[in-house]
Amino acid sequence: MEDQISKLSDAANRMRISSIEQTAKANSGHPTSSCSAAEIVATLFFSEMRYSVKEPRHPSADRFVLSKGHACPILYAAWEEAGLLTREQVLTLRKLDSDIEGHPTPRLEFIDVATGSLGQGLSCAAGMAYTGKYVDNASYRVYCLLGDSESAEGSVWEAAAFASYYKLDNLVAIVDVNRLGQSRETMLGHDLFTYAKRFEAFGFHSIIADGHDIADLLKAFDEAKKVTGQPTAIICRTLKGKGIEGVEDKDNCHGKPVALDKAEIIASKLTNKTKIPWELENLINDAPNVDFEIGNIKMSSPPNYQIGEKVATRLAYGNALVKLADTNKRIIALDGDVSNSTFSDKVLNKYPQQFVQCFIAEQNMVGVAVGMSCRGRTIPHASTFAVFFTRAADQIRMGAISFANVKFAGSHAGVSIGEDGPSQMGLEDLALFRAVPNSIVLYPTDAVSAEYATELAANYKGITFTRTGRPNTPVIYPNDEKFEIGKCKVIRQTNEDKYLLIGAGVTLYECIKAHDMLSSEGIQVAVIDLFSVKPLDSQTLIEQAKRVGGKVLTVEDHYQTGGIGEAVALALGDVPGVRVRSLCVKEIPRSGTPDELMDLYGISAKKIIAAVKNY
Amino acid sequence: MEDQISKLSDAANRMRISSIEQTAKANSGHPTSSCSAAEIVATLFFSEMRYSVKEPRHPSADRFVLSKGHACPILYAAWEEAGLLTREQVLTLRKLDSDIEGHPTPRLEFIDVATGSLGQGLSCAAGMAYTGKYVDNASYRVYCLLGDSESAEGSVWEAAAFASYYKLDNLVAIVDVNRLGQSRETMLGHDLFTYAKRFEAFGFHSIIADGHDIADLLKAFDEAKKVTGQPTAIICRTLKGKGIEGVEDKDNCHGKPVALDKAEIIASKLTNKTKIPWELENLINDAPNVDFEIGNIKMSSPPNYQIGEKVATRLAYGNALVKLADTNKRIIALDGDVSNSTFSDKVLNKYPQQFVQCFIAEQNMVGVAVGMSCRGRTIPHASTFAVFFTRAADQIRMGAISFANVKFAGSHAGVSIGEDGPSQMGLEDLALFRAVPNSIVLYPTDAVSAEYATELAANYKGITFTRTGRPNTPVIYPNDEKFEIGKCKVIRQTNEDKYLLIGAGVTLYECIKAHDMLSSEGIQVAVIDLFSVKPLDSQTLIEQAKRVGGKVLTVEDHYQTGGIGEAVALALGDVPGVRVRSLCVKEIPRSGTPDELMDLYGISAKKIIAAVKNY
Repeated sequence: MEDQISKLSDAANRMRISSIEQTAKANSGHPTSSCSAAEIVATLFFSEMRYSVKEPRHPSADRFVLSKGHACPILYAAWEEAGLLTREQVLTLRKLDSDIEGHPTPRLEFIDVATGSLGQGLSCAAGMAYTGKYVDNASYRVYCLLGDSESAEGSVWEAAAFASYYKLDNLVAIVDVNRLGQSRETMLGHDLFTYAKRFEAFGFHSIIADGHDIADLLKAFDEAKKVTGQPTAIICRTLKGKGIEGVEDKDNCHGKPVALDKAEIIASKLTNKTKIPWELENLINDAPNVDFEIGNIKMSSPPNYQIGEKVATRLAYGNALVKLADTNKRIIALDGDVSNSTFSDKVLNKYPQQFVQCFIAEQNMVGVAVGMSCRGRTIPHASTFAVFFTRAADQIRMGAISFANVKFAGSHAGVSIGEDGPSQMGLEDLALFRAVPNSIVLYPTDAVSAEYATELAANYKGITFTRTGRPNTPVIYPNDEKFEIGKCKVIRQTNEDKYLLIGAGVTLYECIKAHDMLSSEGIQVAVIDLFSVKPLDSQTLIEQAKRVGGKVLTVEDHYQTGGIGEAVALALGDVPGVRVRSLCVKEIPRSGTPDELMDLYGISAKKIIAAVKNY
Repeated sequence: MEDQISKLSDAANRMRISSIEQTAKANSGHPTSSCSAAEIVATLFFSEMRYSVKEPRHPSADRFVLSKGHACPILYAAWEEAGLLTREQVLTLRKLDSDIEGHPTPRLEFIDVATGSLGQGLSCAAGMAYTGKYVDNASYRVYCLLGDSESAEGSVWEAAAFASYYKLDNLVAIVDVNRLGQSRETMLGHDLFTYAKRFEAFGFHSIIADGHDIADLLKAFDEAKKVTGQPTAIICRTLKGKGIEGVEDKDNCHGKPVALDKAEIIASKLTNKTKIPWELENLINDAPNVDFEIGNIKMSSPPNYQIGEKVATRLAYGNALVKLADTNKRIIALDGDVSNSTFSDKVLNKYPQQFVQCFIAEQNMVGVAVGMSCRGRTIPHASTFAVFFTRAADQIRMGAISFANVKFAGSHAGVSIGEDGPSQMGLEDLALFRAVPNSIVLYPTDAVSAEYATELAANYKGITFTRTGRPNTPVIYPNDEKFEIGKCKVIRQTNEDKYLLIGAGVTLYECIKAHDMLSSEGIQVAVIDLFSVKPLDSQTLIEQAKRVGGKVLTVEDHYQTGGIGEAVALALGDVPGVRVRSLCVKEIPRSGTPDELMDLYGISAKKIIAAVKNY
């Protein structure tokens, strides 16, 4: 035991030295935030956790999430200590050609989720733990290291409530209470008791420990393993910059490298100057193989609607989702207590094991989804009202940096929801999801295209968003119509077209109405169902725009910013002779009927006709 | 006492009747969520709160925030009971021409903040309470009614931690624990003890009460008034749909109107059939007059830099903010523990009373700012890294629906922050703030324009965003340069210009470099400093685009979606002969030096020159 402690203590100090050297070489980064966590991370990596250095993403390995991502030098140092990385490699910290980035990202094979925007790690960890306990039914445990400052983020408490509600006794949160934030002392300083009380109130078993006392940490991790039916929080008293002479526990040392002689002082205190290699290939190999292949996921049956039948696209989403769940046990539906509006409750009703109720906590829902998608364990489908994804915009952003494979579906898009008013209307959601690098954004108009959109999204590896609507709208496509990511549909065209209307969802119906009325007056317009908002079908748009003589009018139930109009304007911006005008929602809407609102905010057939005549 | 209780009980039941009638007439809305809160709201409005029916926004009146906004029929009913509204008026609920909207908005004079996106009210209420206690030094108290479902939102706990840290004993949170969410029972059901424990752990005095027992409620409010040094939470056991026969405490009744005969049954149970008018003009008039006039707010001195001097725009923001604070005691700086990076700490150092540390809880920071801006009490300036406003995107959105007057400033924009990596880079912030209806978005390039941008923002009534950068960049404008909202600056032009470059911030310097190098090769390009991203100076952009022959190139340190390129493309989309191309960040960036990253992601002078030559 003595021996083990001194070995772990030396590991912690070697990791401190590495952290100091990494950040000194980079001339930026967070050595003090790393050093407060040195014993915690050393104990976790070299006594507690079971994993494979050869295969860091082994499905059965324990997971580690560094929620306080800025402390990544200590994480890189841990993998150096474990033998996966060399000192030379970690000393490339923050260099352009290195994946040893300023904050952790899964460009590195031992990182599951990107962190650096604070307070998000515990949700991802909870998603992994949920998967381990209920989907994989495997032994792996999940450890999440949080900073004390970041526990001010509400998302931490959303995650805590979720973890205890689902009795995730395979989840351990460790809080590195080093007292100091970036600009000043935290709200609670070293009041460990209050941290413990908060976690207990949120259903955790809590343990207070000295975060620099390895024996105490070993005891705490042991205790955590014996806890059943609830997750554990280990609240560790630490000092920021621990071990760095003249810096330890001092204010104004956040995110500042220290001189290399500080590392030498630590080196001189090592019990064993020579490192003894660790034996680490100790995981319990009991996570099952996953049985899906992205690109080959199919609904159990094709859409089955009648042309003209009125079906909301949100309902069709629910229908498609349950048909995907029919064929694939790792399709998971996540909900924020609106499943009876988004129709994800169809999965709940048929396959309760494939449904995760996240209650009204969208940030955590997204974090859990990102966590569940890690190592390809599941294909999470998170749905709520389109507008409420705004609540989790930062989690979605970090999901992108995590290269997560999560399917989002947002219902109740736009003013066409009607009476509930602006707080419930998704008018920024296309912009939110278009801004995600490598994302796919689909906006189906009818039930048939909504089902295919859902199937297409499930087969794309990365973040997707499918926008669905509240009103019941007529089916316009046959059940065997083919849809593709990046392809629009030209649904009305003649040789006399003088204008091109581009719509999607509710506005496509208005475009069709406008087409019919204009046509009866002898004015011919082509109509495109955009379907794939991202990527845009630029080729078809350009061809059609040129064909009609250059006058393009986009119509969308969305604000201007980042919506269809701006996307199309830039895509066609470089085509000589092509002009783009946009009809979209331009002010804060009110309550009213869908038809009234669409007309008031300028996206009705009537307003389209006026815009065409005034072009 | 008996008499008072029966009077309040009748009021509650009349409000129930009104809620049922409102929603029945609208054929949508939330009578059951209203009825669980009937006694709570009646007791608040007709016994506890001191306010003016004649002047609902009186600065000295107690504030009421209905965080569970979907229960607004009971709020409209309360103002009907108070005599401000007629039954005829409240029966226009959810109609297009009525301000009695589906969720509350400040189009109504008795509403301070829009609610309807859940979990946001307590932050706004805490902002009001902070203002009352520390800025107004007045007696008014703040009451916030929350639903139990929405307490799953982390933002509630951010607000709770803030309220207790600042000892807001003038704040009372009331939780209407009616057990039922939209789709199912909440996580905690009727476990009132756990709610109380959570609020206590977050520093509240907590009281458990029967939410339908008026005597119990009166006692609880009395107890709350005696609490000093901490806020109070009253956890009320209620039944959803209380009083509605056959609906009370039943699942699947969320957001569904009920038959009018349910109202008749309640009416038959009133103790007094005739309503006795209330005497309500009882506020303590001790809130001071505010002494600022929007449009006339001035910095204490103009910018004072040397041309060529290297100053980060974030530093200039800090300089300007303290100069505004010099002349106006109601300019308040709010921070999320990064004030030493955004330089809002200049206000902290000089005027600690005008600085509010919100710690790492951006959602709450924004909610507090919205609350502090209510009734024109202060002009809150909230700053953090640009990217971390993404965390509060939903609060910003609701701030817009609240017609809030809040100034946002986001530093560390774009890949030019360098080594910290993508999690810290603001690449969606222009889109986020452009999407806010009626917002102003300014993107100053140098220190002089950054100071004027800050002053311009302070003088605009509404939401503004000023984007600042991390690197030190040279001053290019004289100290007396005039800047205007909606006006760009043509900083390079000749009669031989063949291209128009549009930049802002770091990319403007790259445009200037490109201009100089192209010019030396005999290729003349005009250069515009966009400055006002919203509104765009369309007139100048069109004139200049035409003048150079139509080839426009925008360059921005931002993703494409909703950024400068898309905004300009649509603004110029309808101008024959004008073409727009965009250079912007198109993938998830990495760590590296600012210069390396700007080149790698295609927004350096070198890449601009290549784009011009290939146009």
